[in-house]
Amino acid sequence: MTIAILFGGSSFEHEISIVSAITMKKVLKKSTLTFIFVDKDRNFYLVDTAAMKSKHFSSGAYKKDKKLTLKKGGFFTEGIFGSKALGIDVALNLIHGRDGEDGKIASLMEFYAVPFISPRMEASALSYNKLYTKFLAESLGVKVVPYQHLSKNDERVVTLDYPVIVKPVRLGSSIGVSIVKSPEALDYALDTAFEYDNDVVIEPFIEGIEEYNQAGCKTDAWELSIIEEPQKEEFLDFEKKYMDFARDSQVMAANISDDLREAIRESFKKIYDPLFLGSVIRCDFFVVDDEVLLNEINPIPGSMANYLFEDFEGMIGRLAQNLPKEKKIAIDYSYIHSIQRAKGKA
Amino acid sequence: MTIAILFGGSSFEHEISIVSAITMKKVLKKSTLTFIFVDKDRNFYLVDTAAMKSKHFSSGAYKKDKKLTLKKGGFFTEGIFGSKALGIDVALNLIHGRDGEDGKIASLMEFYAVPFISPRMEASALSYNKLYTKFLAESLGVKVVPYQHLSKNDERVVTLDYPVIVKPVRLGSSIGVSIVKSPEALDYALDTAFEYDNDVVIEPFIEGIEEYNQAGCKTDAWELSIIEEPQKEEFLDFEKKYMDFARDSQVMAANISDDLREAIRESFKKIYDPLFLGSVIRCDFFVVDDEVLLNEINPIPGSMANYLFEDFEGMIGRLAQNLPKEKKIAIDYSYIHSIQRAKGKA
Repeated sequence: MTIAILFGGSSFEHEISIVSAITMKKVLKKSTLTFIFVDKDRNFYLVDTAAMKSKHFSSGAYKKDKKLTLKKGGFFTEGIFGSKALGIDVALNLIHGRDGEDGKIASLMEFYAVPFISPRMEASALSYNKLYTKFLAESLGVKVVPYQHLSKNDERVVTLDYPVIVKPVRLGSSIGVSIVKSPEALDYALDTAFEYDNDVVIEPFIEGIEEYNQAGCKTDAWELSIIEEPQKEEFLDFEKKYMDFARDSQVMAANISDDLREAIRESFKKIYDPLFLGSVIRCDFFVVDDEVLLNEINPIPGSMANYLFEDFEGMIGRLAQNLPKEKKIAIDYSYIHSIQRAKGKA
Repeated sequence: MTIAILFGGSSFEHEISIVSAITMKKVLKKSTLTFIFVDKDRNFYLVDTAAMKSKHFSSGAYKKDKKLTLKKGGFFTEGIFGSKALGIDVALNLIHGRDGEDGKIASLMEFYAVPFISPRMEASALSYNKLYTKFLAESLGVKVVPYQHLSKNDERVVTLDYPVIVKPVRLGSSIGVSIVKSPEALDYALDTAFEYDNDVVIEPFIEGIEEYNQAGCKTDAWELSIIEEPQKEEFLDFEKKYMDFARDSQVMAANISDDLREAIRESFKKIYDPLFLGSVIRCDFFVVDDEVLLNEINPIPGSMANYLFEDFEGMIGRLAQNLPKEKKIAIDYSYIHSIQRAKGKA
């Protein structure tokens, strides 16, 4: 199978997307990989697999690579003898943050009829925005961490008890996120968050909270990963998360009860099916007083959360065979024809 | 000002989008219009203004028009001497239903940096789906018509009193919508709706309910239309709605109290700002027991609801000058550089 890895993008997470893409070289060994880089100006470049090193991008060397055009049916190289399609079976959207997670890449792939692994548009719009994620989860009967929403121009009044965590609603990878221990520190945290977004969510910050990550997808059957208990730190800052995107070896499953495992999996399934069909996502859950609360959905997890799966590459292959199909719409101009007949024009 | 009218699309509402686009010829007289047709296979065609008649499309004559490619900065014609950009100031998204209202066109325009009038991606995803519209309105403090959500595989139990109205969640223009007067008729209505969508919303159907339509946008200030009380019929079927998309002369304002007018406008503003900045939308409200309830958001209203505005063309010009700007993201590879330095590679 030939998989086109789409990475980069006009995103605060551009650089970690490069790290995620390089990791794919190590975990998708049996597939033929075609690397398609989206530069900061949203040009598409075809990057040779041998050139897939971070310096190729940071040095600007990629600019000498072949440019690609996205058109109906796929990506094309343009030459003096016309355009030539890249032969790919499926595109894997690995653009973290804007462009990749907000629904743009999904829209482009769907519009141009390129088979793709990624959350679809609706799933992207709802999971890219932490506030909408809360609406979604609540409507599906999945409990969430309590929260408060503030817009840039709202009065800065926090009704939750301190310490709280302040997050821009539309960013991942802890960018713009602060822990606020007392009211005096609130303004600075909000100023930081509002640099990135016009909306923030504020949640209670609970030191040492039990956290579990569950990744998975649905191919011809459910394919759920092991559940990981991520390492405890106040929270991962950008540099640590950055290294996190290079993870490529399987981790140990958290030592939890069967009941808790089942509760986490049920919550994951409620979130995933049917909205996220066609994608591999990771959901981060908190457990408080034996209750499973959704913390975040990672619609395009770092390095696709490959390290949580026993047979990551096999799963990607099965997912490519089980992508949601776009509904065909027949357009036969029957209304125009009937109106023209009525007017005596047909 | 040169305005590119985008119309057609792979949508059940393809044909009424053509009608909407033809109407623009009559209501945007001072502007230079460039008509860009998206055919059912999502090819872009440049259609001569003189050819903008419904038969041009129903006969397939458009296939002889010049094809366009969407690339960074706009639409291009390709010739033996390379590609040439169409000179346009702004694109007006007039694709009703799928492609236009679901966020695909918004994504394409944003990705390729084409200034455009349309709801943005998030606004599209939330308003294209009648269920998410309810979540949105409720979160903004706007009351909605009571409802029940059913998915295709759910048990077919309706808890509302009959008569009810059954609507596919993702379609406009009354497609797949049925009024159900008694439980015996429910199955047929659900079968019809599920032909179009995997999810439906069911609402009470109230004969002769007071309905008011408010359109508008925010340019450098609020520009709200008159409020119309649409003609009463059980509901408009597709053929009647179709003709509705050709409306081009201003209608009379509904004769309502100042208080009601103010309440409708406040609800409209809550929905619109900031999510719908950059677009002209029409909200349809019901009034029950003096309460204003949101019925539907029309993110790309038929013929842009031009008939509700005194100075439609002037408003479009002002809106084009006041479009939301995409946040610039600086990508300087500082993380990759710092990691390379740490490794002694830089």
